[in-house]
Amino acid sequence: MPPANFADRLHDACQAKNSVVCVGLDPRPGQLPPQLAPERSVVAATESFCRSILEAVADLAVAVKPNIAFFEALGPAGVDLYSRLCAAAQDAGLLVIGDIKRGDIGSTAAAYAQAHLGAPAENPFAHHDAVTLSAYLGSDGIRPFLDRAVAHGQGLFLLVKTSNPSSAELQDLELKQGGTVAEALARLVTMWGEGHCGAAGFSAVGTVVGATHGEELARLRALMPRTPFLLPGYGAQGAGAGDVVGAFNEDGFGGVVNASRSILFAYEKEGTEDFAGAARRATAAMREDLNRALGRQA
Amino acid sequence: MPPANFADRLHDACQAKNSVVCVGLDPRPGQLPPQLAPERSVVAATESFCRSILEAVADLAVAVKPNIAFFEALGPAGVDLYSRLCAAAQDAGLLVIGDIKRGDIGSTAAAYAQAHLGAPAENPFAHHDAVTLSAYLGSDGIRPFLDRAVAHGQGLFLLVKTSNPSSAELQDLELKQGGTVAEALARLVTMWGEGHCGAAGFSAVGTVVGATHGEELARLRALMPRTPFLLPGYGAQGAGAGDVVGAFNEDGFGGVVNASRSILFAYEKEGTEDFAGAARRATAAMREDLNRALGRQA
Repeated sequence: MPPANFADRLHDACQAKNSVVCVGLDPRPGQLPPQLAPERSVVAATESFCRSILEAVADLAVAVKPNIAFFEALGPAGVDLYSRLCAAAQDAGLLVIGDIKRGDIGSTAAAYAQAHLGAPAENPFAHHDAVTLSAYLGSDGIRPFLDRAVAHGQGLFLLVKTSNPSSAELQDLELKQGGTVAEALARLVTMWGEGHCGAAGFSAVGTVVGATHGEELARLRALMPRTPFLLPGYGAQGAGAGDVVGAFNEDGFGGVVNASRSILFAYEKEGTEDFAGAARRATAAMREDLNRALGRQA
Repeated sequence: MPPANFADRLHDACQAKNSVVCVGLDPRPGQLPPQLAPERSVVAATESFCRSILEAVADLAVAVKPNIAFFEALGPAGVDLYSRLCAAAQDAGLLVIGDIKRGDIGSTAAAYAQAHLGAPAENPFAHHDAVTLSAYLGSDGIRPFLDRAVAHGQGLFLLVKTSNPSSAELQDLELKQGGTVAEALARLVTMWGEGHCGAAGFSAVGTVVGATHGEELARLRALMPRTPFLLPGYGAQGAGAGDVVGAFNEDGFGGVVNASRSILFAYEKEGTEDFAGAARRATAAMREDLNRALGRQA
């Protein structure tokens, strides 16, 4: 029996948990709670912090999105921790979207795909239900990831329109053929996703579209009608529930909304030592906020 | 005293070694010489292989370009090996261009920069003289890397026009403002490089332009007159010395030309067990071929 389609797994998890919340795991060393400082190393403190966060949000969030940059910043031991935390998140019933933003040409893309997709028994980095990818290199940079993802019931989220202020410099340039660079990439994403749709009507090939671009979301959704959206930018980056509605259908499905800092470091804003409790409360509030805006059961 | 500008370091190394050759370190497990199979693991075999190659090419190549994808494919132990091989290459007098193709938005870009640039004492991944980056996210994805690179005499190579067949799908689209997507990115690369030029007239901000696109090279060089070019695609991907001439100035400087498979696995073509000797001979032949085409001393 082939593995379930990733989009179906995402859809079913959203239904089961009544949540479209994704928690970004971006453990910035400078913002770790002071009481973790006695841990023997930054890696150990990061591990304690992340494991507590995973436990605190496991039943409220549908997915976590660890960003490997913050683990690479801790050196080889940090990268090893990354793979162990991805495994722990899956064990806790969370989908893991590895925010790795990899991308390379054909044969090298195959090596990245072998690293980050497939069975974790083959490579500990593959404790991923999906990964984020750069798509600037075109089809032969995507196909090796896609083949491996589909074979293992995993998914891809391709960068189309990012949430940072300078994303406009290249992504918003207008093309002679009409539309913008990001919109041309959106058409490619739709093309790559064809033939990989599940029972819920969505494809295993998703996209990353910054939730800070509310006005563009409807246009991009029209170009990618069957594409799961990963929407970063909620919370600390300024987007609210109203900004993401355009990405979801009448059943309240269409992807997941990510928040990182506003959940991980909610304890700073609350002025409490109880960082896990603060993260849980922030996740619950975000879930309710989104469910209300999307017409899901509150 | 501030560290020497990366472009000057590259220029001086090219002069000292009379070489513009960069050897891509892409250790594909399936192509490792059979006599290394008795090694206790693929990681150990990969380490033996790469160390022999480094030794064989150290005086002929100006730089090596390890692609981290092939090391991530070996799991956390492979990533650790990556950082140790980068250190070994620097010890052997080679410049190390980490082919990591990272890229993310502002604060996450800063985490990647902290991982891969700066002093190796802070992070073993920083045994890099330069790194390759994706630039699709615009200025705020590049600045954190640039600040850290310049502070440590390191450089960047930003993907503009890649060497794969499907690079045209997005990179060659024509813009309303004139020129292609890749050319718009080339203008940004030039802008990011301003103020970071060294005595040799080149900037610490370089670019990756596939050597398989000979006809576009002159146009891209005109848009990036002070940008060091990293030109992959020589050898196995089909480009020859004549294809890259347009990237170099009358002094035979302008960047480096990379070959991976045609050097690493030259032993297969030669039909010999002596993979290091074959790699050395292929590197010497490539150096001579390029020096002749560029009008450098043979």
